[in-house]
Amino acid sequence: MSSNIRIVLIETSHPGNIGAVARAMKTMCLDSLVLVSPKIFPSAEATARASGADDLLANAQVCDSLDEALHGCHLVIGASAREDRALRWPVVKPTEGAQHLCAESLRGPVAMIFGRENSGLSNDELSRCHQLMHIPTNPDFASLNLAAAVQLVAWEIRQVQLQGTATVDDDDAHEPATSDEMERFYVHLEQTMIDIGFLDPQSPRYLVPRMRRLFNRARPEQTEINILRGILTASQRHVPKESEVS
Amino acid sequence: MSSNIRIVLIETSHPGNIGAVARAMKTMCLDSLVLVSPKIFPSAEATARASGADDLLANAQVCDSLDEALHGCHLVIGASAREDRALRWPVVKPTEGAQHLCAESLRGPVAMIFGRENSGLSNDELSRCHQLMHIPTNPDFASLNLAAAVQLVAWEIRQVQLQGTATVDDDDAHEPATSDEMERFYVHLEQTMIDIGFLDPQSPRYLVPRMRRLFNRARPEQTEINILRGILTASQRHVPKESEVS
Repeated sequence: MSSNIRIVLIETSHPGNIGAVARAMKTMCLDSLVLVSPKIFPSAEATARASGADDLLANAQVCDSLDEALHGCHLVIGASAREDRALRWPVVKPTEGAQHLCAESLRGPVAMIFGRENSGLSNDELSRCHQLMHIPTNPDFASLNLAAAVQLVAWEIRQVQLQGTATVDDDDAHEPATSDEMERFYVHLEQTMIDIGFLDPQSPRYLVPRMRRLFNRARPEQTEINILRGILTASQRHVPKESEVS
Repeated sequence: MSSNIRIVLIETSHPGNIGAVARAMKTMCLDSLVLVSPKIFPSAEATARASGADDLLANAQVCDSLDEALHGCHLVIGASAREDRALRWPVVKPTEGAQHLCAESLRGPVAMIFGRENSGLSNDELSRCHQLMHIPTNPDFASLNLAAAVQLVAWEIRQVQLQGTATVDDDDAHEPATSDEMERFYVHLEQTMIDIGFLDPQSPRYLVPRMRRLFNRARPEQTEINILRGILTASQRHVPKESEVS
């Protein structure tokens, strides 16, 4: 079982889908299911559709926030049906995404997140992702069921694991920053941009999302984040405090 | 649509599965569904689960025999969960089977057949197959749902069909910063780090090379470099000039 690969479902409406996802995961040796604010859970319908994968439901972690769901994760990939979003985030194919998840899971938790049945992931949620996975469905009928999408991704992961090709990239033996560390960095970056007068909180435009996109693409290491935060702190020190401003 | 590739379901018990199969097929551009003696069909449950793939249900061919379903097919592949059967028939992996189906469909109809939810294909039915497709599920939980199995095979077929299709790499529709722009940015970054007192030019350590590595990895766009340089300029403005320092 690959407990380091979390499947995260956000605000799932239909409990049957949760059960079907558990079943899909277990057939492909995934066992770590995380539910962010599910509409109905637990439920008899989920258990029925899990068809024997009850242990995954029983062990599912239920969270109130995506932050909690992604705690400790250093790679986050979001499933996206919309191609227009692909223009603004690094996009991977399912096979490629599965390879990344497997390789990175060797050194710590990673997450694959799936949005709501009807509306997918919000922009805020997308901004938490390092990569988007786009499944190239029929352009005239892209209505992939949630559990079907999980089945397909789980299958790709299974294939990578059967090939035994997942290896940690030795090139980069340094610890990547976790999702939490990245969030604290973004908060610090935003505050600094405000402090130095570069960002007007009344009219933030797209500055913060653009910086998120840039740094998520780079997948910073912990030491790099420490340096960046050191730079932010040093530049904040030069800003006169509120009380000193006439 | 790939009408020459038939998906044949034998004696399906649950009408919901038939609908979910139609949906799975349509998302992957398959449209030829053949039902051999379904327990209940048509049904409201199938239509509900088809979730818009009603046309596939309306056009589904309902047969009394496998003979009728396979009429005209020159390649037949059967899905099999049981590995012991694999010993007695040529076995293909899903990817390989999908390649065969696509290649052979160019000259006439081919079929991929799926057995009953509980008992799969009979020996008689197996003997109609040229090849068996074995999906390597979790040995301790091989309970792949019928529609999930069809989804997975349809996905493999879709991938074969997409290969060779010219695609534009949307990954990077924006202008990446040039080498010169990057160099000017690094000079600016270094000067700012010195100005704000973060970098001691007498003892620079590895700060600049580390920042180079980080930003080179991100492959920034021109607009992103402009934002970063804006941030640097704004933070430099707060540093007292040499002459002002006592």
